[in-house]
Amino acid sequence: MLNLTKVSEWDDGHFQRKDDYLAAEEPLEIRVGTEPLSVTMRTPGHDLELAAGFLFTEGIVSSGEQIVSLQPGVSGENPNVGNLVHAELVPEAIPDFSKTQRHFFAASSCGICGKASIDSIRSRLLKAPNPDFRFAPELLVKLPDVLRSSQDVFQRTGGLHAAALFDSTGALQVLREDIGRHNAVDKVIGWALQGGQIPLANSVLLVSGRGGFEIVQKAIVAGLPVVASVSAPSGLAVQLARELRLTLIGFLRGKRFVIYSGEERIAH
Amino acid sequence: MLNLTKVSEWDDGHFQRKDDYLAAEEPLEIRVGTEPLSVTMRTPGHDLELAAGFLFTEGIVSSGEQIVSLQPGVSGENPNVGNLVHAELVPEAIPDFSKTQRHFFAASSCGICGKASIDSIRSRLLKAPNPDFRFAPELLVKLPDVLRSSQDVFQRTGGLHAAALFDSTGALQVLREDIGRHNAVDKVIGWALQGGQIPLANSVLLVSGRGGFEIVQKAIVAGLPVVASVSAPSGLAVQLARELRLTLIGFLRGKRFVIYSGEERIAH
Repeated sequence: MLNLTKVSEWDDGHFQRKDDYLAAEEPLEIRVGTEPLSVTMRTPGHDLELAAGFLFTEGIVSSGEQIVSLQPGVSGENPNVGNLVHAELVPEAIPDFSKTQRHFFAASSCGICGKASIDSIRSRLLKAPNPDFRFAPELLVKLPDVLRSSQDVFQRTGGLHAAALFDSTGALQVLREDIGRHNAVDKVIGWALQGGQIPLANSVLLVSGRGGFEIVQKAIVAGLPVVASVSAPSGLAVQLARELRLTLIGFLRGKRFVIYSGEERIAH
Repeated sequence: MLNLTKVSEWDDGHFQRKDDYLAAEEPLEIRVGTEPLSVTMRTPGHDLELAAGFLFTEGIVSSGEQIVSLQPGVSGENPNVGNLVHAELVPEAIPDFSKTQRHFFAASSCGICGKASIDSIRSRLLKAPNPDFRFAPELLVKLPDVLRSSQDVFQRTGGLHAAALFDSTGALQVLREDIGRHNAVDKVIGWALQGGQIPLANSVLLVSGRGGFEIVQKAIVAGLPVVASVSAPSGLAVQLARELRLTLIGFLRGKRFVIYSGEERIAH
């Protein structure tokens, strides 16, 4: 996931050549059968989890069972070996490419773009996440340190987003990094999907950076009751979280955080 | 661009209710004639600039002259009044929706997704940005302070990305904010396009956050010689910058920065 390269550093008037690590960023194409479904810029690694999470959180499949197989692309089919995932889906999950192509592609290329409106999300969502889940504030404020200390790549490049799942005791379940925040979230949800752990009714999702609409949307699809981020959520993220009774935390820093929605789950 | 809302703050054991500002995030649909071209989540404001910049940096049009008109959508056509921009293009710039639909949508929905490869960028790019442009390191390290002090919304919400253009003397030309970094860049480039200032052969683009592939790609299309960010660039961004001889700066903080490409433009 890292490339070593020569760079120049300027520090208060002094130049020097040095080695630096860069986060890798390459396109991943997901195909359903022979049809290209999406192309996303991502940090290579855990590609099958990413594909599984993408297919699930974007509503292509409604369960892990609808994914018959996921396989890395092989040479000869595509010049970007390793940048292709073939998905085989059960017949009822295969999108009608001829009919829905236009909106489909606009809606599926990545989590942040192509959402026509909250209405399109609403239509897919059946129920609010686990109303009985509780998480103590004293436990919540410890999670960012766990995330940071586990984030190997970030410390060397400063360029990757992280997403992590914690169980109800605050123990880290899985951490994934990616140059795209929505990809990091798809990777951890894909990990859970492949492990038969959906819905994630007793987990907390922590993301580095901002809690945007697309993160909340993906979390709701996965049944997560609590989403926390170290920065600000957007207005639309808060609106969606409130409507669907997800607990949304922002500015989780030091011994402080802000609850934007679902305060009842943060026991006090 | 801001919504006021009630939230709960937890601070080291103490809860309190307070008012908080949230950054707005709504979908913007860009139509060419009657055909929907893309839907992007964006922070409302400067939508025509955003549409102009998007059309240009994504290669739909190759100049401002190819955009005959841009108009906000009107009620009755779309339930999201104000979330629609109608673009009228010269005939030769109108995409062949019937033929290129699939890849077109995958490639245009937003800057970060859908780039099949550097090859697709290469095919559109004719020349490296201005080789004679020079910018002093002492001037460069002052730009982030100008950006921050001009960033009204950011200081209240912490949730918006910024993009700004500076001229060769370090004077701020334009600053735009958006919940999506690529949108903020499209807005400043759209501003320049509408003002007849393309190519931006003597300007520096500064972005908050990370210098990703899509930012470098958009900068090159606009003819910008220097792109700087306060965080890390990705490996692919560096690769593209080196190949096309753009000066790429990262970690511009305090009195320090790192040059990843095009060192010759940073005079010393």
